[in-house]
Amino acid sequence: MRPKIYVFGDSITEGSFGDGGWGASLAHHFSRTVDVVLRGYSGYNTRWALKVLDKAFPAAGGGGDDAAPLAITVFFGANDACLPDRCSAFQHVPLHEYRHNLHSIISIFKKRWPKTQILLISPPPIDEDARLKYPYVENTMGMPERTNEAAGAYAKACVSVAAECGIPVIDLWTKMQQYAGWKKACLSDGLHLAQTGNKIVFEEVITKLRDVGLSLESLPIDLPLISDIDPSNPLKSFEN
Amino acid sequence: MRPKIYVFGDSITEGSFGDGGWGASLAHHFSRTVDVVLRGYSGYNTRWALKVLDKAFPAAGGGGDDAAPLAITVFFGANDACLPDRCSAFQHVPLHEYRHNLHSIISIFKKRWPKTQILLISPPPIDEDARLKYPYVENTMGMPERTNEAAGAYAKACVSVAAECGIPVIDLWTKMQQYAGWKKACLSDGLHLAQTGNKIVFEEVITKLRDVGLSLESLPIDLPLISDIDPSNPLKSFEN
Repeated sequence: MRPKIYVFGDSITEGSFGDGGWGASLAHHFSRTVDVVLRGYSGYNTRWALKVLDKAFPAAGGGGDDAAPLAITVFFGANDACLPDRCSAFQHVPLHEYRHNLHSIISIFKKRWPKTQILLISPPPIDEDARLKYPYVENTMGMPERTNEAAGAYAKACVSVAAECGIPVIDLWTKMQQYAGWKKACLSDGLHLAQTGNKIVFEEVITKLRDVGLSLESLPIDLPLISDIDPSNPLKSFEN
Repeated sequence: MRPKIYVFGDSITEGSFGDGGWGASLAHHFSRTVDVVLRGYSGYNTRWALKVLDKAFPAAGGGGDDAAPLAITVFFGANDACLPDRCSAFQHVPLHEYRHNLHSIISIFKKRWPKTQILLISPPPIDEDARLKYPYVENTMGMPERTNEAAGAYAKACVSVAAECGIPVIDLWTKMQQYAGWKKACLSDGLHLAQTGNKIVFEEVITKLRDVGLSLESLPIDLPLISDIDPSNPLKSFEN
């Protein structure tokens, strides 16, 4: 049975199988070794994620699959970081609760799947001008519902939770802002990922997985590759 | 537990999670309803596919998952149709055996998963000039290893097998050639899919699935959509 990698998060995960998306790229990269399974929930914050964890990852008794995945990416914070006094306040989660919720999510996964590699991903930076230009809900205040400063605080919390739990993390907020012209190159609407943003997430995920021993070099291929099949006797490759 | 759709086939399936690929588009389309699971094996023909069926789809006893998928696409023939006297002859499967093998694959799936919708996809048309320009193996004969005429014969056989089995089929060979400029628009190297080719396969798969009752309108959403969550009381959506 081919092992799994779950990608768990908000809309930046739910949309990750769109054109050039980082989730699809991951599935393509591991096309002969791992099933990349999408668990993305647009608009969700860590509070809601905790509420649905059992349904998103049902146990065998609930019709699910008890096989431990190789890895799971946990990519929340972009909605938690909505400002509490702006138009998307209903998605806001206070910073201390966000930290606590991330700890809880990690604990639940660690308890259920002790050998599974958990990889945290911080929220991306925010282009505030674009957030005003592409509102998700009615915004009569003339102020963006998310700011780059707030996203940065949540990213910093995410990085520190990873350190406390001893698990790897991608500090996307910092990483993306190192890219010249990140607002347009990495983001499509000031929050969601454009082509370069998707490429950065994909490359970072691949790198972090490789760091913990999960790579094309280390993972077994399921069935003979065409390059390993002897043209003079192809069926020999399929004998046990 | 979220239901599955398997995509099973050769390199045109294995590569379907690349940029703009039809498999990734399918996963994106069903991002909140179905897990689209990749079982693509580059270079494989129906003879080899039969040899690996048990390993590609292990039963629960073999570490697999016995839950019946909603649907499975079976997309072989492009390698079977390699000419027997050209440079890729080792992949060739005679037409009568191709027919027989497709029947066997369908029978095995029908026996194991009686309610699963099986969708056959015929091989695509071939741009012979491009096949000479982009060889996969050394080709000293100056003649393409695949011809459009041979691919057409295998496509016709695929369509008739579907009729004999009473299952839906996408006649990709015919469909694609209805598109003006198909050689460049639909194919990247005379065989594999370019952007328009991927779009055609995706649209056809979605249409055929809809015809048998599998669509976004009919499939249950796993968890509350952000558009259904009450901003004044979000947690209400997560009470059972």
